[in-house]
Amino acid sequence: MLRFNPISLQNVKLSDSFLAKWVNLNSKSVIPYNIQRCKETGRIDAFKLKWKEGMPNMPHVFWDSDFAKVIEGMCLDLISHPDKKREKELDKYVDLIISAQQPDGYLNTHFTVVEPEKRWSHLGRAHELYCAGHLMEAAVAHFQATGNRKFLDCLCRYADYIAKVFGKKKGQKKGYPGHEEIELALCKLADASGNKKYAELAKYFIDQRGQKPNYFVEECKRLNLPVPASFDNVQAHIPVREQKDAVGHAVRDMYLCCGMAEVAARFDDKELLKVCENIYDSVTKRRMYITGGIGSSEKGERFTADYHLPNAYAYAESCASIGLALFAMRMGNITGEAKYFETMERAIFNGILSGLALNGTEFFYENKLEVNQAIADAVGHHEGIRQPWFNCSCCPTNFCRFLAQIPQLAFSYTDKAFRVNMPINAEIDLPMADGRLKATITGDYPQRNYYTLRIEETCKKLEISLRIPAWADNTAVYMNGKLVSRNPKEFYKAKGPFKKGDEIEVHYDLNVHFNYADPRVSDAAGKVALSYGPFIMALESIDNETADMSTILINTASTFWPSLVKGLPGLIGIKGSGFIETAAEPGILYSSKPPKRKACTITAIPYCLWQNRGPSNMAVWFRRA
Amino acid sequence: MLRFNPISLQNVKLSDSFLAKWVNLNSKSVIPYNIQRCKETGRIDAFKLKWKEGMPNMPHVFWDSDFAKVIEGMCLDLISHPDKKREKELDKYVDLIISAQQPDGYLNTHFTVVEPEKRWSHLGRAHELYCAGHLMEAAVAHFQATGNRKFLDCLCRYADYIAKVFGKKKGQKKGYPGHEEIELALCKLADASGNKKYAELAKYFIDQRGQKPNYFVEECKRLNLPVPASFDNVQAHIPVREQKDAVGHAVRDMYLCCGMAEVAARFDDKELLKVCENIYDSVTKRRMYITGGIGSSEKGERFTADYHLPNAYAYAESCASIGLALFAMRMGNITGEAKYFETMERAIFNGILSGLALNGTEFFYENKLEVNQAIADAVGHHEGIRQPWFNCSCCPTNFCRFLAQIPQLAFSYTDKAFRVNMPINAEIDLPMADGRLKATITGDYPQRNYYTLRIEETCKKLEISLRIPAWADNTAVYMNGKLVSRNPKEFYKAKGPFKKGDEIEVHYDLNVHFNYADPRVSDAAGKVALSYGPFIMALESIDNETADMSTILINTASTFWPSLVKGLPGLIGIKGSGFIETAAEPGILYSSKPPKRKACTITAIPYCLWQNRGPSNMAVWFRRA
Repeated sequence: MLRFNPISLQNVKLSDSFLAKWVNLNSKSVIPYNIQRCKETGRIDAFKLKWKEGMPNMPHVFWDSDFAKVIEGMCLDLISHPDKKREKELDKYVDLIISAQQPDGYLNTHFTVVEPEKRWSHLGRAHELYCAGHLMEAAVAHFQATGNRKFLDCLCRYADYIAKVFGKKKGQKKGYPGHEEIELALCKLADASGNKKYAELAKYFIDQRGQKPNYFVEECKRLNLPVPASFDNVQAHIPVREQKDAVGHAVRDMYLCCGMAEVAARFDDKELLKVCENIYDSVTKRRMYITGGIGSSEKGERFTADYHLPNAYAYAESCASIGLALFAMRMGNITGEAKYFETMERAIFNGILSGLALNGTEFFYENKLEVNQAIADAVGHHEGIRQPWFNCSCCPTNFCRFLAQIPQLAFSYTDKAFRVNMPINAEIDLPMADGRLKATITGDYPQRNYYTLRIEETCKKLEISLRIPAWADNTAVYMNGKLVSRNPKEFYKAKGPFKKGDEIEVHYDLNVHFNYADPRVSDAAGKVALSYGPFIMALESIDNETADMSTILINTASTFWPSLVKGLPGLIGIKGSGFIETAAEPGILYSSKPPKRKACTITAIPYCLWQNRGPSNMAVWFRRA
Repeated sequence: MLRFNPISLQNVKLSDSFLAKWVNLNSKSVIPYNIQRCKETGRIDAFKLKWKEGMPNMPHVFWDSDFAKVIEGMCLDLISHPDKKREKELDKYVDLIISAQQPDGYLNTHFTVVEPEKRWSHLGRAHELYCAGHLMEAAVAHFQATGNRKFLDCLCRYADYIAKVFGKKKGQKKGYPGHEEIELALCKLADASGNKKYAELAKYFIDQRGQKPNYFVEECKRLNLPVPASFDNVQAHIPVREQKDAVGHAVRDMYLCCGMAEVAARFDDKELLKVCENIYDSVTKRRMYITGGIGSSEKGERFTADYHLPNAYAYAESCASIGLALFAMRMGNITGEAKYFETMERAIFNGILSGLALNGTEFFYENKLEVNQAIADAVGHHEGIRQPWFNCSCCPTNFCRFLAQIPQLAFSYTDKAFRVNMPINAEIDLPMADGRLKATITGDYPQRNYYTLRIEETCKKLEISLRIPAWADNTAVYMNGKLVSRNPKEFYKAKGPFKKGDEIEVHYDLNVHFNYADPRVSDAAGKVALSYGPFIMALESIDNETADMSTILINTASTFWPSLVKGLPGLIGIKGSGFIETAAEPGILYSSKPPKRKACTITAIPYCLWQNRGPSNMAVWFRRA
């Protein structure tokens, strides 16, 4: 299978641009803040294995994964932002984690100190293999960052042990994780360690999932637990190769898909890739918010039914959008199809970044598309305000490692080709089969209407692909000032050799677009959402003439223009015109007369930036006039 | 204060018409079915006081109220539908309840057999006084139905005991119910027994509510429970006379308002009546569904914020609409203002009757205004299908006693006046200060465009008021065939003497109306709801050209006409025209092109009748074109 790899962080250096600022924010604030919270909550000390009944901070079944994600982020970030002091701190944490490994290779704080008798007993809910997966990803990142094998070897020992426990041979458990993640992690471990058997284990976990007799059904019976009507919540209702729709817990499904894509690519498994494509279609054609948010239901944090995408009652967990971006990146790298990068970009610039405040220390778990603060207060949720952390803090810790990977999502390569998925300002220095690619990208994507890739060192055989986003209008590509392509679709491809100083310039119109949902989406029917570049725009009451978002209409006959966002220096919003409706008869809730309208100015900002200037009402979808 | 009384059931006999059918259904199905379920679940046997630890069917804190409501319904229904066998059965139940009374007058199954040591210890949650209230209402109904005082006396003894326990005197508890109901019940008990002290006790409970120090705060402290930030969920955050908004648990607030209205009328307490008016305004001007549903939030079954009236996520408990109708009836009887009867009628014909299937044995607890069965299934609620009963079965049992009261809501009187609030086909035989009123109402309200009140016996001084509903267009009133009034507002009043054979005819146009919500209601902004007479209309997918309700638009320029409902003999729906939208680009969830439209026929039925022909998607609010 065609397969590009994410660029190694060693080979790319971001410079100032929109996404680079978030990557830097991660380094400066998100990671240290999450370390601090892990410390305060006992997630780090858990690895000392000193906890005993009656003591505070009992290690929870998913705590290891939280700390592992922070460590993974710390490792990746150290490549981009070397820091001796932090490297030393990291080393201490890594040693601590390694010290918690049991003689047989097992490594899990909860099931070592809290319920040692319950090891592997409740895969459906206990998160053991999930935690193992995140530790593996952390270990791989540590190896990439430091070249030191100690953490990697530790996790290989754990993986070796897991490979003994699980499998189809006699005496092995025919189980698989209740929360997927280890599948993709095992593939990474296989790459980093050079040991393909870990990928075989990933394949086993994927293929065993949902087989009859259903492992989770048997497990419930063994534990005298009620057997649910279906295990679709964990994608184990039927074998994965029979699955066509995105179902159940959204994060789990996306991590499963990442694992399936990895296994499909490694084993040239077209059937499994087709499963990925079907689930991707299910998500993006029927079950995804315009923001790239997925998983509509708070109950079960899950996918629900086609076109069920409520705005005010959205769940759209930050982690689920992260999972979607990671899945889409893999599919893009495997298939080379631009649509996957469109989705990856949609998720990043909207449903993911919305989960993190510009101060780097406050988070949305749920990313709603319509918030009225008075209602949020009355209902008793704090869904309208980013929170400092959560007891279940998967999302904050996920940002640590996701943001550190941004360059890897932006740029992919093979030994003969280089691809720009997102043209972030960056310096690239990449070894190829035939020499090096040294290049610089400038342009301040996505807030500007052009960017330039400049060759810094002559290089020979090489194909450079530049993604042309679907939101870019009237694209023109220039090679050294000469027009070479008008409106290329999906990618503009340039073949080497290139000489030092060659410049490929991509120009396009950066227009405000009106987006219309399939009218089967009840909360978006008859409405329009504004977008500007990859940004889905939102209206905050703080910028507009009314706090009652539902009374606002967008004038789709008017022109919208870019405009700096008040109170958020350097960030670009848009302005245009619309209408505000008021009841025909004041004080009458239901009238026989339709409401009255008056013209107003509309001010919209990128959705991901909302609620960075205090509490405000917000909405994405507006009626059109 | 001006005060009409609900007609006694002895003085009215309904004949065939829309509401009479529901009253008969109650007699034939709802009551016996609920008796059966009370039996099966142990709610009746609970009164034997035989339950012991380890036995099944532990009497729950609110069980007494469930059975009490069924008994109340059974008593009231026996007046309208005399039945010796059922009277005997009732007598057995009443004796059983009486046998559970303790020597000191206390009467509560849970706190007698399950937690005797906890009597009155947790008023905030334990429903003790609530259950007492429903038993009192049942006892009053029993006395009205049978003339036998035994049950009434039993409850008077209980009330005497409660009056000793609670009050502002030294040694008394300064508490009040966590779930209001007893206030209105004590007023009824005062009337039935002739002992005004019960009304004084009601007044105490009302005035003590929310006073400082807050009883529930103190109670939580005593019980070592966390103290909530506010007790607005039970309307005890501030004294009731300072309350302006409908807050907290919707049923509780409505029962409190019923109690306040009763006390206000009895004590000529204008300040308290003003509180009722303010809360009524809060409900009907800002916090009520067009169906008369109230309480938007499942969490806490409560009022939330102004204009927060989501359709698919509506809660709108059947009991809450029943509470609203009971409150509105009281306000109408006290003030004589027609608006209260408009609201009562809105609640009855929409948000209340929707809670009960036409088979009399299936119920909605929640009355949503938009249901997609696939989503309901995926989310795991059974909100799209009426259910046989509930563990918390307040709604099914409430129907038993509410439906039996329908005639009392329809007709009010003083000793000199008679008022028709809802012109149900009926025979009236009412003693007045000066003779009797014997009259017959015919017309099949509300499905026909006229009705006639015919005097059957000459009577002297007497004022007859006929309510002219707001939905009746071009009303003309004829006395003995002669036009006497055109478009009277609110009430047409005729002064006697009347002679036998006098006929007052009310004619009006029964048009389909378009209703527009205040656009601050997010889920109704830009939309229209159809109504026909008092019926708010709904579209069910079973009758229409698409199952995707959100793709339908109503053509407000078209004429809608009445049409019999397919599969529901004798029931009237409407037809008209509209449009169905489909995505501009099939398979694209978010497009830059607006959806396409095609014309379609719209078929709507009364909202209260939906889901009587199998599962169907349904909505009330539609975009207008």
